[in-house]
Amino acid sequence: MHCFVTGAAGFIGSHLVEKLLAAGHVVTAYDNLSTGALTNLDGAISHPRFRFCTGDVLDLSNLRQEMSGVDFVFHLAANADVRFGTEQPRKDLEQNTIATWNVLEAMRTCGVRRIAFSSTGSIYGEPDIFPTPESCPFPRQTSLYGASKLAAEGLITAYCEGFGFQAYIFRFVSILGPRYSHGHVIDFYRQLREHPDRLFVLGNGNQRKSYLYVDDCIRAILKAIRIADNKVNIFNLGSDETCCVDDSIGWICEALKVEPTIEHSGGERGWIGDSPLILLDCSKIRSIGWMPTLTIRESVRQTIEFLLRESGPGSCATGAVENALAVAAK
Amino acid sequence: MHCFVTGAAGFIGSHLVEKLLAAGHVVTAYDNLSTGALTNLDGAISHPRFRFCTGDVLDLSNLRQEMSGVDFVFHLAANADVRFGTEQPRKDLEQNTIATWNVLEAMRTCGVRRIAFSSTGSIYGEPDIFPTPESCPFPRQTSLYGASKLAAEGLITAYCEGFGFQAYIFRFVSILGPRYSHGHVIDFYRQLREHPDRLFVLGNGNQRKSYLYVDDCIRAILKAIRIADNKVNIFNLGSDETCCVDDSIGWICEALKVEPTIEHSGGERGWIGDSPLILLDCSKIRSIGWMPTLTIRESVRQTIEFLLRESGPGSCATGAVENALAVAAK
Repeated sequence: MHCFVTGAAGFIGSHLVEKLLAAGHVVTAYDNLSTGALTNLDGAISHPRFRFCTGDVLDLSNLRQEMSGVDFVFHLAANADVRFGTEQPRKDLEQNTIATWNVLEAMRTCGVRRIAFSSTGSIYGEPDIFPTPESCPFPRQTSLYGASKLAAEGLITAYCEGFGFQAYIFRFVSILGPRYSHGHVIDFYRQLREHPDRLFVLGNGNQRKSYLYVDDCIRAILKAIRIADNKVNIFNLGSDETCCVDDSIGWICEALKVEPTIEHSGGERGWIGDSPLILLDCSKIRSIGWMPTLTIRESVRQTIEFLLRESGPGSCATGAVENALAVAAK
Repeated sequence: MHCFVTGAAGFIGSHLVEKLLAAGHVVTAYDNLSTGALTNLDGAISHPRFRFCTGDVLDLSNLRQEMSGVDFVFHLAANADVRFGTEQPRKDLEQNTIATWNVLEAMRTCGVRRIAFSSTGSIYGEPDIFPTPESCPFPRQTSLYGASKLAAEGLITAYCEGFGFQAYIFRFVSILGPRYSHGHVIDFYRQLREHPDRLFVLGNGNQRKSYLYVDDCIRAILKAIRIADNKVNIFNLGSDETCCVDDSIGWICEALKVEPTIEHSGGERGWIGDSPLILLDCSKIRSIGWMPTLTIRESVRQTIEFLLRESGPGSCATGAVENALAVAAK
């Protein structure tokens, strides 16, 4: 089929593009390159079934033009960082909610009826039930990011009812792996490259989160689309384990061979809208025969390995990167 | 306190304004008069504690200017008709979601921190649980209207978390009473005024809905604000009974003294996004000491009485309006 991928030059988007091409599909990639990078698509760019369009999801007429003849839309373009909602309160509304409306409208006018959407476990806010199932009690939003994704989900499901769309909505935990570009692992990595002797941590370090490796994430998406066939198909996507921020710091420091003094900002939440605990009930996606292949620890390790490869030799402790690369490659 | 009411010239807004003035508050009314009417504010317009501003909630700078010095915002301005979402897919997004973001941003920059919001039972989509409680399982949207109000609720609760707002969110059933301006009662009334011998009904007539009289609605809102004091206070607002469309038709025809041939379009839903059954669990709002005073039947009857008074003598069956007025006034 002819797939249209928004946010195709981003972390998850670029992995999806590669898998879609490998599965024999035609791929039109759409990205404004504001946070994505063409280098993420190095493995796809010269493929005969691949086409790249520089374009913004806020540009409805361009979206319409590029989407013509498409069978399936993977809508991944988004402001993906939950932390800065209160500093830029319009960003999530525009880039996540209004952008999703644009994608849906372009689809409607182009006659495209199938969509997969990258939602987030953040839309559960601070739930009372762990692991949190897709059908948990009506959640209350605690971040502008979560609110913007909730709004996007609402639009998508309303388009399913109103215009005969079929949707696959994936509520992700944080995703790790090669080309990973934001989140706590990269923040800690960057801090430790700059000053290997100290690390500043938002919150008390006890926030517990679930993570998933990007390849496992893409396999789940493609499997769900192949197997599930309701009008609206909603899946949590995560692993059945959690790790706390301090665990993760231990693995990162081990890989980098550094022993920094750790300073916590304190509090159960790292920032406004941060969740002290994220653990999704993934029994629904597991029931169709998917399971993750990498543990969280291994996902963190592979992510650090990627960051080290990408950055090349640098500071950390003298010679630490080379050692770390050797360790990480084991 | 100094109250700012968006949609103040509308059906519910104008009743709220009167009650706020009667309770001794200062009221700034904000309305673009697109569907509201200044005549709805006849009882308020010359009051010394009342000020009217013609303005659009999509005009953020004007909102900011008019909101200066306000203590509490009642945000009622909205596209309130659930039926036409698929014909004008951008309308709900703009007038309900983006408009609510504007109201929140104006509040934030003006230092206003308390908001009451008119949400809707439509955000439950087609729930599995009846009566439907506020904490029912994560709902799926079936209308662009519901999706836009869900998005607005998400924004409001995220502003509570992010910016220290306090919110009162009311999920209404359909409201009836004087100045009522859209919905099935007025549709049937207009049809019967034009041709008293026949009535066209969307759906099979068995859709069951709950309704609430406008005075009961306003009393509930003001009581909740007085008594509830959480950061986020969400209340269903309806009655504990339902009536089906055909019941309602019977009461309307009785009041108008007409006996039309009734033609149903058929189907469980009157239009795309219509709910075959709406019945909200209102035990939460009842637990703070509120209960409705009028039955649905009486609410329909009073609404017809208002419509008859407003329209004056006209067609229906010859002389029927005069008779109907006499009947309705009983």
